[in-house]
Amino acid sequence: MQKLVLLRHGESLWNKENRFTGWTDIDLSEDGFRQSEQAGRLFKKHGFEFDIGFTSVLKRSIKTLHVVLDQMDMLWIPVQKSWRLNERFYGALQGLNKEAITQQYGEEQVHKWRRDPHEHPPAINETDERFPGHYLRYYDLTYRELPLTENLSETMDRVLPFWHEAIVPALRQNQKVIICAHGNSLRALIQYIENLSDEAVTSLDIPTAIPLIYELDEKLDCIKHYYLS
Amino acid sequence: MQKLVLLRHGESLWNKENRFTGWTDIDLSEDGFRQSEQAGRLFKKHGFEFDIGFTSVLKRSIKTLHVVLDQMDMLWIPVQKSWRLNERFYGALQGLNKEAITQQYGEEQVHKWRRDPHEHPPAINETDERFPGHYLRYYDLTYRELPLTENLSETMDRVLPFWHEAIVPALRQNQKVIICAHGNSLRALIQYIENLSDEAVTSLDIPTAIPLIYELDEKLDCIKHYYLS
Repeated sequence: MQKLVLLRHGESLWNKENRFTGWTDIDLSEDGFRQSEQAGRLFKKHGFEFDIGFTSVLKRSIKTLHVVLDQMDMLWIPVQKSWRLNERFYGALQGLNKEAITQQYGEEQVHKWRRDPHEHPPAINETDERFPGHYLRYYDLTYRELPLTENLSETMDRVLPFWHEAIVPALRQNQKVIICAHGNSLRALIQYIENLSDEAVTSLDIPTAIPLIYELDEKLDCIKHYYLS
Repeated sequence: MQKLVLLRHGESLWNKENRFTGWTDIDLSEDGFRQSEQAGRLFKKHGFEFDIGFTSVLKRSIKTLHVVLDQMDMLWIPVQKSWRLNERFYGALQGLNKEAITQQYGEEQVHKWRRDPHEHPPAINETDERFPGHYLRYYDLTYRELPLTENLSETMDRVLPFWHEAIVPALRQNQKVIICAHGNSLRALIQYIENLSDEAVTSLDIPTAIPLIYELDEKLDCIKHYYLS
């Protein structure tokens, strides 16, 4: 049996403002910092250790992991960052207020955009300042990999290569792994690990900065999972 | 011409208390945090960017680099941590007050311990709680690599493999590199890069958190160097 730890970043400034964030690189709120410290103390209290950490290239996750490892006195472990663990790319919704969008498009449509694994938010085009191709950190991505919008199924498609190429090899070497990422990159991963149906993943909601522990068998199939408290 | 950036970590709590630190994992002081922020702002003001960061496995350097990259909005770059960039291992002096040691052993001896590249501080033995073999983060080191004491020349001997195997390849790929490390691991590196005599390195003192820029030619020989201000 092997433990895999998933952690959604602490509250960000736009979680607080109820705006769609996606790949926008928004910082943690003060509460988000405190939640992250609390998560770190929780790991420590339960005797957790990590050999390696994985996170996105977005500061709200990078900082959450930093704060957690600092609390655990384990800042020295290797941390690998990848765009593949980024939040879902929310297209033209990024930056917009969820309430305002709901008034404009109706609750049903917004719920679909947020939760239906096959529904695309409205796309941006390459001239939009939100297009990831404009940012240094995404210069290594192929044109095909640069999103204009993303549904959850596409998020899973780009998360899984990183799972198989970076995270699974670490687990196979019996390394103790923490993945600090985002609501939707984690939902995609969980759908895969638990082999959830699209219906089941629709109602899956992951709270910020609450450690989620997966116990996996030797095939890396899920035995059980629970939140640490 | 290529720029290589060296940065000594911000002031630590034991810099403040005037104690020998070595591999003891002491945190930054409040001033150390502020110095690190200031260094980050300085890089930003001068238009610096980095493709990769290297640091030690000690939190005062890891945090300094984190704060610097945060100020530059470049937390997303890869950061590689290695024990080979750690501060010199100060043996039985670690934790002791420099003033008290000076009163006990005399100024000349203490100066030798601190600055003579071939002088060993008194060694610890493996039962000492300061022996690195007791710490998880050093479990991958061979017995031979675990220090009981270190002179600057030995520090250089363990820094250089990392220089050649990790940092030089990055420089050869024209990556913009920052090394955030410690007074003596940086002195060792500088002695090598500038091909300094033992006499010259004796008087070399590196201030905390002031960016030190090296301009290197294509053979990675030093053309010139200066502090950023």
